[in-house]
Amino acid sequence: MSVRTGGRVAILGGGQLARMLVQAGVPLGVSFQVADKSSDVCAAQLAPTQALEWSDLDALAALAAKVDVVTFDYENVPADSVEHIAQQTAVHPNARALAVAQDRMAEKALFESTGLATAPHAAVSSREELDAALKTIGCPAILKTRRMGYDGRGQFRLRSDGDADAAWQDLGKAAAQHGLILEALIPFRRELSVVAVRSSGGEFRSWPLVQNWHTDGILSISLAPAPVSEALRDEALKRARAIADALDYVGVFALELFVDGDRLLGNEMAPRVHNSGHWSIEGAVTSQFENHIRAVLGMPLGSTDARGVSLMFNWIGQMPDRAVALRHAGVHWHDYGKSARPGRKLGHATVCADDHAAVLARAEALAHDLGCESRLEPVREWLKLAE
Amino acid sequence: MSVRTGGRVAILGGGQLARMLVQAGVPLGVSFQVADKSSDVCAAQLAPTQALEWSDLDALAALAAKVDVVTFDYENVPADSVEHIAQQTAVHPNARALAVAQDRMAEKALFESTGLATAPHAAVSSREELDAALKTIGCPAILKTRRMGYDGRGQFRLRSDGDADAAWQDLGKAAAQHGLILEALIPFRRELSVVAVRSSGGEFRSWPLVQNWHTDGILSISLAPAPVSEALRDEALKRARAIADALDYVGVFALELFVDGDRLLGNEMAPRVHNSGHWSIEGAVTSQFENHIRAVLGMPLGSTDARGVSLMFNWIGQMPDRAVALRHAGVHWHDYGKSARPGRKLGHATVCADDHAAVLARAEALAHDLGCESRLEPVREWLKLAE
Repeated sequence: MSVRTGGRVAILGGGQLARMLVQAGVPLGVSFQVADKSSDVCAAQLAPTQALEWSDLDALAALAAKVDVVTFDYENVPADSVEHIAQQTAVHPNARALAVAQDRMAEKALFESTGLATAPHAAVSSREELDAALKTIGCPAILKTRRMGYDGRGQFRLRSDGDADAAWQDLGKAAAQHGLILEALIPFRRELSVVAVRSSGGEFRSWPLVQNWHTDGILSISLAPAPVSEALRDEALKRARAIADALDYVGVFALELFVDGDRLLGNEMAPRVHNSGHWSIEGAVTSQFENHIRAVLGMPLGSTDARGVSLMFNWIGQMPDRAVALRHAGVHWHDYGKSARPGRKLGHATVCADDHAAVLARAEALAHDLGCESRLEPVREWLKLAE
Repeated sequence: MSVRTGGRVAILGGGQLARMLVQAGVPLGVSFQVADKSSDVCAAQLAPTQALEWSDLDALAALAAKVDVVTFDYENVPADSVEHIAQQTAVHPNARALAVAQDRMAEKALFESTGLATAPHAAVSSREELDAALKTIGCPAILKTRRMGYDGRGQFRLRSDGDADAAWQDLGKAAAQHGLILEALIPFRRELSVVAVRSSGGEFRSWPLVQNWHTDGILSISLAPAPVSEALRDEALKRARAIADALDYVGVFALELFVDGDRLLGNEMAPRVHNSGHWSIEGAVTSQFENHIRAVLGMPLGSTDARGVSLMFNWIGQMPDRAVALRHAGVHWHDYGKSARPGRKLGHATVCADDHAAVLARAEALAHDLGCESRLEPVREWLKLAE
């Protein structure tokens, strides 16, 4: 008797993003198929999950034949595989969007072609090119793999030219396989993200801008709506929309931005739902997960308006004490059902309140009880600055 | 790698209530086992589900051994079976609460013993007792099975004594197995419900009062917060709390009330999450489903404060056009993944807005597009009266 007629979606990648997409799609009557390199992934607790290799075109085709649309929790599925699936089944976002997002050089070229500035950067494929790039760009700078980097992996920070040897020792081997890029490091930068959704008909909606704080390259805290001027917000949304239109993008994506003085710089885009949008589950009328499902299945988009102000803590490496956290009003808990491992995203909590002062007070009380108060210091600073 | 250490819950009954309990518990890190007479139930799409008979004590014991607590989507699990499980595993709510809620006479006796009046009523076990009860109670009245009735099933309305033959023909056979009860039918009554949660430590929290409208004995629309005076609200919560305390109740329950003039009458209680609390998923800080899971696992209870005003439509017999509905702002869709059947609850939609006028306007626009405007007529009347 269990039937769902509300659309069938395959998700490539079975991590917490897939898990939260399933959570959001189930009430819409949508059924899911998840695939990952292993079937022992956290989305498997909620949806049928199969193990396959991203290069196994037959397995991918068989999966795609079972659904109405294929989408992603993991953006590094090879473009060849995506193009193969797209011959028979709708794939959102499209192969081009994935290909651009997979390569930091292509991404920056797209940003610039649509009018979004980027920090000085240069492709690096040899030690000589690294030295040349350092001369042009100067220090501080950051050497990254062009492809397959995430959560601070495949990155090396150079404080001075003297760090070039160490940087090359760390990443030189990756130059051949993934390519490298040297980027100027913007000091005292502010990190914002646009989380937005675009429909197949070209309708564009953005959640309020998010301000993000990272620790060791991993997102630590997101605050939404970010305290920004209307002018900055409008400029950010305009740039995000131009990028989405240029890619004929369908679904949710995130555009990470640096603010350098009054200037916006494009850092990178994620062609999927994004960690800096998790607050939208409780903090917006429609979550990023629900709107992604709506977009890829061609349903009308839901309102992206905020409900009050939200602050999200990522739980990395180990989960804090849930019972302590849940004693706090307005705290929403998300445990991804993963085993603990250093540097691994295991869950998040979203603190909701009516305004910035109230959300900070609640977040401070929570962080105090969980022993992670220091994480809020930069947030406190920013909210003071924004007063 | 997929592990959950946040508690293991077995749910007896695998319908939409179990499904929404799983949806709410998963982000808390809780794992679920569902059991029902068939494994082809709508909760099976989200949690491991086994088929068993409620009388199969060995199967129930084996299930209970796998979890930390047993709870219910279906309140008519036999009390014997519940007591058997309770010997080895925590069961919330407890066997006594279930037994009371399973018998309309016991329920009304409890209401009266805790100070909540009820409509005139009498137990009926024979045709002679029906005639005698009709003499005392008068018409209009309603003959119901004492046990196993739900959603208007096992009920017969008597407009005059002349309907006694037809009533007995319909329900006389059920007298031996389930017992019958004759209740006075309160004309022009208003129907409210208290949806509340009680922790094992005795903490009691109620969501705002809900006003309900039924069609053919099945809930059609719920509005929360109900437009009620503080005095009425306080009285309703006081009565609900007294009942929960008397039963040493743990978890969410609903108390259905009639308002006869200024007087509250207890109709029935549901020892579980309740259809009139579904709006709390989007319309309250913590949903009834999450707080039930928190309560039965001994976690701190979450805030039951409303977020604005919510109006829920039940979708019965067939699902309306989702694409039409989702074009409306503030509409949240819930498809239970069931096949269509007359009289069957297939899903619901919750319309959220800032106040009663705004929620009514949104609900009217939605109902207009879905062709079910007439359902809102009584709501419109009530909101005018409450102005």
